[in-house]
Amino acid sequence: MDSQKPMNIALIGAGNVAWHLAQALQAAGHNIIAVYSRTAESREALIAKLPHAKAVTSLDLQHFNVDAVLIAVPDAALPGVAATLKVSPCTLVAHTSGAMPLSALKHVAGAAIGVFYPLQTFSKAKAVSFSAVPLLLEAENPNTLKQLEELATSITQTVHKVDSVARKQLHLAAVFACNFTNHLLGISQELLYGAGLPPQSLDPLIKETVNKALEQHPFAVQTGPAIRHDENVIEAHLHMLEQQPRLHQLYTLLTESIQDTQPEQ
Amino acid sequence: MDSQKPMNIALIGAGNVAWHLAQALQAAGHNIIAVYSRTAESREALIAKLPHAKAVTSLDLQHFNVDAVLIAVPDAALPGVAATLKVSPCTLVAHTSGAMPLSALKHVAGAAIGVFYPLQTFSKAKAVSFSAVPLLLEAENPNTLKQLEELATSITQTVHKVDSVARKQLHLAAVFACNFTNHLLGISQELLYGAGLPPQSLDPLIKETVNKALEQHPFAVQTGPAIRHDENVIEAHLHMLEQQPRLHQLYTLLTESIQDTQPEQ
Repeated sequence: MDSQKPMNIALIGAGNVAWHLAQALQAAGHNIIAVYSRTAESREALIAKLPHAKAVTSLDLQHFNVDAVLIAVPDAALPGVAATLKVSPCTLVAHTSGAMPLSALKHVAGAAIGVFYPLQTFSKAKAVSFSAVPLLLEAENPNTLKQLEELATSITQTVHKVDSVARKQLHLAAVFACNFTNHLLGISQELLYGAGLPPQSLDPLIKETVNKALEQHPFAVQTGPAIRHDENVIEAHLHMLEQQPRLHQLYTLLTESIQDTQPEQ
Repeated sequence: MDSQKPMNIALIGAGNVAWHLAQALQAAGHNIIAVYSRTAESREALIAKLPHAKAVTSLDLQHFNVDAVLIAVPDAALPGVAATLKVSPCTLVAHTSGAMPLSALKHVAGAAIGVFYPLQTFSKAKAVSFSAVPLLLEAENPNTLKQLEELATSITQTVHKVDSVARKQLHLAAVFACNFTNHLLGISQELLYGAGLPPQSLDPLIKETVNKALEQHPFAVQTGPAIRHDENVIEAHLHMLEQQPRLHQLYTLLTESIQDTQPEQ
């Protein structure tokens, strides 16, 4: 396979990652020729965006002229896909999961297996500039890694080689930095709503907080009643949360965690 | 007092809020004529930035030609300052706390009392464009509120009238959205460090997460293993945190909280 040429790619999955990845690959000149998804609605919506793609309902892709198969399914569905997928010998097969090891693909007979993990949060409703999304790559052998690199650099400026152990750590760090952070921002919105305050009230403060945390170690710029050990304010806040036991627990535990953290850590 | 004229202002406190507020007020043409702080070092550092200011070591300001006294001290110190402060009749006296009620100043005899709360996180090391900082105002009477508004609009574009109850709710929401969020970003940095990964690895993901959370309700764009109920990933993450009981607790509670949250809430 001449990797300077556009690749013929099959996509397994039609969720948020597949949605953005497929369109970035197509914009880079590759051909998405097949899309497999158990969800007919999302599969058809994605195919409508891809002029060369057809829907496939079987994971036996041996009779397709496919250079690469990218698997973008929920982590729980990956083992089932890997057990069923059939490809021609030496076809590049990569999954796109942050949490799953490369070895999740070891049962795909004859394939050149790898990981092609876009480190970004995707929603179908929001356009993403893929060139700014870091792609984290891993492969079983150097040749496969080179193919993945060529595919990756066709759609992004930032490519890292990261093995399964480090990728798993990175994914855990991302859960704290992104998923949990987003949840706290949601709680804050609900508290503003409950107080009859505009939902944008804290936007400048949130932006500044995050900018600061990206410039210096967040533990060095921690502010608020917890780090000041301002027990009066902490007591007053806990009193306000008495009817919301989950928020009360979260406030208590996060406050303890801040107070236990050494600023120089 | 003609509020179109520059005001003569005394500052009580020389911490992060006083530091930025004093310089913004001075840049707007007001005169900071006195700075009181129990910490000589920060007091002298601030005075060095203010050509008209002198250090004062007593809270009896009756013999100063002061139009306004702004109190920017830790919440726990505010009652003590309010009990000791002496001003000429009808001097504007405002505190800058998000968590303390207006009534914290009720014992300042003869003063026109108010609240002048900048809704922003400040560090001395980082310059702040004060014109983008919302100022939340409250006063005992309309005249005092008008004075506070004139002072506020001389340094910022965004001024809100917010009473003590709503300000307290806003402050609680800010603890979740900013203080706790910053702590999670710090935990994430430590996890990256522990895995030997560059500290900037997640920056694009964090920026996109926050941008998205500011555009839509965060609960509507929640991603990650918790909201997907991806028990395999959750178990693997908890296993990785077995040696860090506090992080294990936080992961568990935040995951439960995400799973308990209705997306349409």
